[in-house]
Amino acid sequence: MLKENEEININNLLSQLDDITAVDLALLLSDLEDEDIQEICFKLSDKELASILEESEEKTQIKILDLLRNNRIINVLSYMSKDDIVDILGEINIGKSKELIKLMKDGKDKKIIEQLLGYKDDVAGGLMTTEYIALKKDLTVSEAILKIKEIISKSEVIETIFITNHKKIIGITNLRDILIAPDNTKLEDITNTNFISVEPETDQEEVALLASKYDLNVIPVVNKNNILLGIITIDDIIDVIQEEQTEDVLRMAGVDKEENIDSSVMQSVRMRLPWLIVNLATAFLASLTIKVFEGIIAQVVALSAIMSIVTGMGGNAGTQTVSIIIRNIAIGKVELKDAFRLVIKEIFLGLINGAVIGLLTGIIVSIIYGNSYLGIIIFLAMIGNLIISGICGILVPLVLVKLKLDPALASSIFLTTATDVLGFFLFLSLAQLFLPKLI
Amino acid sequence: MLKENEEININNLLSQLDDITAVDLALLLSDLEDEDIQEICFKLSDKELASILEESEEKTQIKILDLLRNNRIINVLSYMSKDDIVDILGEINIGKSKELIKLMKDGKDKKIIEQLLGYKDDVAGGLMTTEYIALKKDLTVSEAILKIKEIISKSEVIETIFITNHKKIIGITNLRDILIAPDNTKLEDITNTNFISVEPETDQEEVALLASKYDLNVIPVVNKNNILLGIITIDDIIDVIQEEQTEDVLRMAGVDKEENIDSSVMQSVRMRLPWLIVNLATAFLASLTIKVFEGIIAQVVALSAIMSIVTGMGGNAGTQTVSIIIRNIAIGKVELKDAFRLVIKEIFLGLINGAVIGLLTGIIVSIIYGNSYLGIIIFLAMIGNLIISGICGILVPLVLVKLKLDPALASSIFLTTATDVLGFFLFLSLAQLFLPKLI
Repeated sequence: MLKENEEININNLLSQLDDITAVDLALLLSDLEDEDIQEICFKLSDKELASILEESEEKTQIKILDLLRNNRIINVLSYMSKDDIVDILGEINIGKSKELIKLMKDGKDKKIIEQLLGYKDDVAGGLMTTEYIALKKDLTVSEAILKIKEIISKSEVIETIFITNHKKIIGITNLRDILIAPDNTKLEDITNTNFISVEPETDQEEVALLASKYDLNVIPVVNKNNILLGIITIDDIIDVIQEEQTEDVLRMAGVDKEENIDSSVMQSVRMRLPWLIVNLATAFLASLTIKVFEGIIAQVVALSAIMSIVTGMGGNAGTQTVSIIIRNIAIGKVELKDAFRLVIKEIFLGLINGAVIGLLTGIIVSIIYGNSYLGIIIFLAMIGNLIISGICGILVPLVLVKLKLDPALASSIFLTTATDVLGFFLFLSLAQLFLPKLI
Repeated sequence: MLKENEEININNLLSQLDDITAVDLALLLSDLEDEDIQEICFKLSDKELASILEESEEKTQIKILDLLRNNRIINVLSYMSKDDIVDILGEINIGKSKELIKLMKDGKDKKIIEQLLGYKDDVAGGLMTTEYIALKKDLTVSEAILKIKEIISKSEVIETIFITNHKKIIGITNLRDILIAPDNTKLEDITNTNFISVEPETDQEEVALLASKYDLNVIPVVNKNNILLGIITIDDIIDVIQEEQTEDVLRMAGVDKEENIDSSVMQSVRMRLPWLIVNLATAFLASLTIKVFEGIIAQVVALSAIMSIVTGMGGNAGTQTVSIIIRNIAIGKVELKDAFRLVIKEIFLGLINGAVIGLLTGIIVSIIYGNSYLGIIIFLAMIGNLIISGICGILVPLVLVKLKLDPALASSIFLTTATDVLGFFLFLSLAQLFLPKLI
């Protein structure tokens, strides 16, 4: 493996091709110029190139495929598993993808690929591969072992073996159980009929949840008649888990999942600006709330300096609540029916945290401005705004889920609007009430 | 599988014990009273109870173990894999854990468990199990198959087989390759000597990164002399990935990873309050910045309503940048050496986004307040603050990493301080400059 910060020297690289793993070479290729990539691809066998393509990021895959002749691509693809072929065909432009499919040898493989291409890439059907071992239930163990040896080299998963009856899946068994069972045992006698499966339309997020809940290494995908269509393997499930979690983190911050550190300035502008404009609307709402109270601020200008403490702390406390709820929604642990219990808890939490923070702030403000009424106002406003932030922190994401919207995307905007507008309103209304004591 | 929102009826449950998966039963047990748990544990065999313990959360495990007699625990543990036994012994109180170890039969297993207990639970040694298949390099394939059949039932992983020479690991091979190789092939001829391993002290985050980068289902843990100590399996790696990502999301929001939706109000207060107090310091810094300019605000009270738009947008834009950087740090794609390039990009980004947002805001403010100089001020301040937020969004997390601090935990606090303090300062300084035009 090359050291990461070693300068990439193309001649060095060419001489070391045998010692580099496909993963590392795929990473290196992403940084190279077209002509260097071509020189490397020229040196590699079709099989080697296939494993590098499998490990490359989308951008690099497209770059490599653009440089290769269609006939070589067909040969390279023949070494790849069908789910990876389908992923690649889905990425390149439709014209080229159709040309390639035309060039493929007619037969079962081509038919399967065309069928897999029909699924969206974020559902079970788009994740599945057809390289599995399925055996008929009335085979004996010794017959099964012969059969397994025959197909094992073409299968992505060998540990889990699917048992079928007239093409319908009836259960799963384990290579381990087959190897230790007496030779004449029927497969159906060592079949576990209690297994988890998904349909091709199942969302990838649900597939990942099932896999992590039940510690599954592989999940069969079946149609409504229980006919085995394909399997989803653990490596693809890990990718889904990482993809979904990254998406959640970025969405909470208003960032498109397509943006990465290599995006150009204009790409980043296009992806970030819309979110900032949405936030600008929120900021104006808060600003207009303050404007309503300008008369009071003109009389007690100190209010302008301390009011943002109340809204800022409300935002911080609300973000804590929202983050916990969104994580628990993501792992399926919270639903709308839990709302009441959670809101009650957040009210007490807001009361206690608000009282502590409010007391601290109130004392400091009283000392700085020499007016204890300012301290009392901020104490009360802080408690109020922290309770508001707790209630909104629970209800906003749960209601968004109920409305089939993504809580990670939209929660923060509604939360900030609530804590800013209500926070300013609460604080400045209290100031109005106590106005004679403040002047 | 029971429906999730079905009321738990203990008699129903007892009559359906055979049909429930261990995972689901483990979930149900977590909600039951002690006496119901006892009744269920009484009905279950030691082996069944072992698989339920393996699937339970820490809280439930401790609850169950508290209800069982030590002798039954020992019998139950004997059905569990050693990494799970070690996890459980690490959770219960030290006194009980020592009693249990004393009760265990002396021998190899006990020695291994004591050794595993010596590792912290967030390093490779704490994740590993010793149930693997290792074979000597000069066995023939047919000898290997006999050996495999003997130990296969005690191994957690059967697909990957480790090849040793005088106890040192020299490579890995695959059950698939063994099954299809001719009978008299030597194992060393089908051994892949180019494999990834970790040491017992390797941080779990690095283990997860390696597994996901190289699509590994299992990683061997070796000591400095290349002697195989144990293996880390994919199910534990998935748990690590989820744990680390959840930790990052929660830390960014100032939430302790130990907090969950079942934490009591006082537990939540204890975990969230310190973060709020840290944020309070930031809020006061911003407040004092405004206080410095009170004289100007007294003359142009409109400033108090519009200044928070500048700081708010700076915070939003900075959060976008920070989120992208933190995700890329987590997957090992960004380091301090990339800082210069990224900062340059963020400056252009801040310039463009700031100009668009600033222009919009400036026009609206000019119309509302009938003063185009207010518009010009906010336009300039917005560009300035979005550039500041971009620079800080890159530098803060990268510097924190360099200082060996967690960027997810501390980035937001430094970022907000910068965008608030500098944002208010920039806007109000500009207002001071243009003061004659504003009155």
